[in-house]
Amino acid sequence: MLDERVTAVYLVETPYTLERAAEVIAGEQSTGTFTAVPGETASLKERHGAAIVSVEALEETDTPSLPGTKVPRGHDGKYRRGLIKVSYPLLNFGPSLPNLMSAVAGNLFELQELSGLRLVDLELPEAFAAAYPGPKFGVEGTRRLTGVYGRPVIGTIVKPSVGLSMEQLGSLVREMALAGVDFIKDDELNANPPYAPLKDKVKAVMAEVERAADETGRRVMYAFNITGDIDELRRNHDLVVEAGGNCVMVSINSIGVAGLSWLNRYSQVPIHAHRNGWGMMTRSPLLGMEFTVYQKLCRLAGADHLHVNGLGSKFYESDESVVRSIRACRQPLFGGYGTMPVVSSGQWAGTAGITYEQAGTTDLMHLAGGGILAHPDGPAAGVESMKQGWEAAVKAVAAEEYAVTHGALRRAIERFGAVEGRRA
Amino acid sequence: MLDERVTAVYLVETPYTLERAAEVIAGEQSTGTFTAVPGETASLKERHGAAIVSVEALEETDTPSLPGTKVPRGHDGKYRRGLIKVSYPLLNFGPSLPNLMSAVAGNLFELQELSGLRLVDLELPEAFAAAYPGPKFGVEGTRRLTGVYGRPVIGTIVKPSVGLSMEQLGSLVREMALAGVDFIKDDELNANPPYAPLKDKVKAVMAEVERAADETGRRVMYAFNITGDIDELRRNHDLVVEAGGNCVMVSINSIGVAGLSWLNRYSQVPIHAHRNGWGMMTRSPLLGMEFTVYQKLCRLAGADHLHVNGLGSKFYESDESVVRSIRACRQPLFGGYGTMPVVSSGQWAGTAGITYEQAGTTDLMHLAGGGILAHPDGPAAGVESMKQGWEAAVKAVAAEEYAVTHGALRRAIERFGAVEGRRA
Repeated sequence: MLDERVTAVYLVETPYTLERAAEVIAGEQSTGTFTAVPGETASLKERHGAAIVSVEALEETDTPSLPGTKVPRGHDGKYRRGLIKVSYPLLNFGPSLPNLMSAVAGNLFELQELSGLRLVDLELPEAFAAAYPGPKFGVEGTRRLTGVYGRPVIGTIVKPSVGLSMEQLGSLVREMALAGVDFIKDDELNANPPYAPLKDKVKAVMAEVERAADETGRRVMYAFNITGDIDELRRNHDLVVEAGGNCVMVSINSIGVAGLSWLNRYSQVPIHAHRNGWGMMTRSPLLGMEFTVYQKLCRLAGADHLHVNGLGSKFYESDESVVRSIRACRQPLFGGYGTMPVVSSGQWAGTAGITYEQAGTTDLMHLAGGGILAHPDGPAAGVESMKQGWEAAVKAVAAEEYAVTHGALRRAIERFGAVEGRRA
Repeated sequence: MLDERVTAVYLVETPYTLERAAEVIAGEQSTGTFTAVPGETASLKERHGAAIVSVEALEETDTPSLPGTKVPRGHDGKYRRGLIKVSYPLLNFGPSLPNLMSAVAGNLFELQELSGLRLVDLELPEAFAAAYPGPKFGVEGTRRLTGVYGRPVIGTIVKPSVGLSMEQLGSLVREMALAGVDFIKDDELNANPPYAPLKDKVKAVMAEVERAADETGRRVMYAFNITGDIDELRRNHDLVVEAGGNCVMVSINSIGVAGLSWLNRYSQVPIHAHRNGWGMMTRSPLLGMEFTVYQKLCRLAGADHLHVNGLGSKFYESDESVVRSIRACRQPLFGGYGTMPVVSSGQWAGTAGITYEQAGTTDLMHLAGGGILAHPDGPAAGVESMKQGWEAAVKAVAAEEYAVTHGALRRAIERFGAVEGRRA
């Protein structure tokens, strides 16, 4: 481990030269302080200093992307953008995700020499694979548990997100399970609220899951949102597993990557990882980090399923970005860590085609809330429309064409295709 | 608890009307989805829906602050800014910090109806105080343990941040302790690295702390950076406490607010909370959150000390913002939660005056790395210069004037006062 290094690529914007910005970054995140101190010897710097691997100039701009930037004397008014690759000795922090974060994504964002800083890539040495076993289920385990092969796992989200009684929840689950959905999840807004404690939810839901399984011979996967304080995670997980549940869900940014990794130490069922709050870290183009980086942290920490938004979603993210996210999750990490990307938000049968065309995989979960529940002929038709949408997608047949002979898809297009130009 | 509510204030920017934006926010974060679903009844909405409390218009702008915004048909080209206050029924998530975060700071940042969203204030009901006991030490406990009254706790950071051998670290600690510093902390880059395992650091440091205490009669407070995975937190904490250590430090964003709260369940010494990575969540003016909000979460979770940057620091943040942060930490929360703000980064004797003038309190920690270690007459003079800087500040005497009769301060001004216009 002694000579392994972590490499980070930053998109930088600075009124200084890119070389100067690179030096500031490397100094701040390893041996430096604002003034030279005794002890920062040449040999210490060589052994522990961050190294600038490369500096690639991109465009210039006249306005700084972020506030509070200091400019050099005689500043020419230009803010230079570029990609700066820095490598850190693993020795400085070891294969520890929490300490890695402080090293590669700590104080840097606040440096006044930078008017923009975004962590766009991160290469980790094998030591991280040894320290973090990652998903226990992933794509294969999820397919095994759901019995779904050759197409995405089709799922839905309990809606309304909050407020359903146990009776209402139970009958909704029953309806969805009988309708043939593979997967159901709680909303991220609904974990263990006072009006519907998790233990009651688990009881109500699992009773219906089992009843439906007796009827259909297929057991729906239900992701119980167990998000809570660290001590609750274990209790909540055990509650689900003891009741025969086969999936738990957490809001990653609410429990931290460290919380996710902690859960993964003892979890016995797939962890469905929701990234709500992620927008805060990524929507400003010259700040925060790319999903490429974030997904690596989440996969190491044990996310079996990881949310990536959806094409044509209700969110700001471009379809290109969503496609990159799906592909990033499907890219082997240390030869494995096969996390299943979860395509969600504003999804319905009509978004299957573009998703497959762009992302080129069926190894994903495709979730529709309203897109299934609000199908004009009911949830069973909603599920059927999703399956038909994917059949068409894999056959490379346009949804409208496939819909001529496939009624559920046709009715979905009639209902949702007109909504603010949503894709069909 | 059944009728308590959480109130969040958002700074919003939108191409729609502010009223429309408020509806989207309230709907997304409570009962809504992209299309009406069965079950979202009027009574459910009334009981569980988020309520728009007020909408206050601010300025308009011609360019959206964030990308990916959808504009309404016939958009007039204006993006409206305003403050939107929304209240959420506590019933929806209960007094749970992780689930609170998903509710008030979850998917909102990604909504395409918004070109900017920043959580600027958060009012929490008493139920949170019952669920989260907060700091066990805070200002009073830290003063009691350090024996420092009537002025800030003066501290330093081990520099170079990384790379010191146990012998070098030990002798630095000895030098600093004998120099009369009240507090020493590890750098956030240095927790439990392979080249300097925490157990060795604790041993080396505590031996010197005890030796110095025998000589001076005062025991320096040393904040050991115990940041690590969740299971390590407890082990690391216990290691420190068993060796007689009197403070532990964590990087909040590396372990999550949930990790901090978990540590606070069993911690026996003050928790020194470092906010590195915070810039990612706050530097874009129309994204993320204000420190006002963040500090409430951290205080509830148990931060005894909380970093706030420093005036005249090396970071982008304005002095006004730093002052607001110090004041926010000193503002009672549920009548208590007396967290000590930690003023740090680019600090030295000359920043005491402006800090006291602006923040109006000595209930803080004032940390200087290079500002003490690189004092021309050595660390003892560095510490003395800090004390003299604060004496001058409290007496409302200019540092330069006080320096005429106070040599350590004078030498500090000579050395650091010229550095890129740093304040004296």
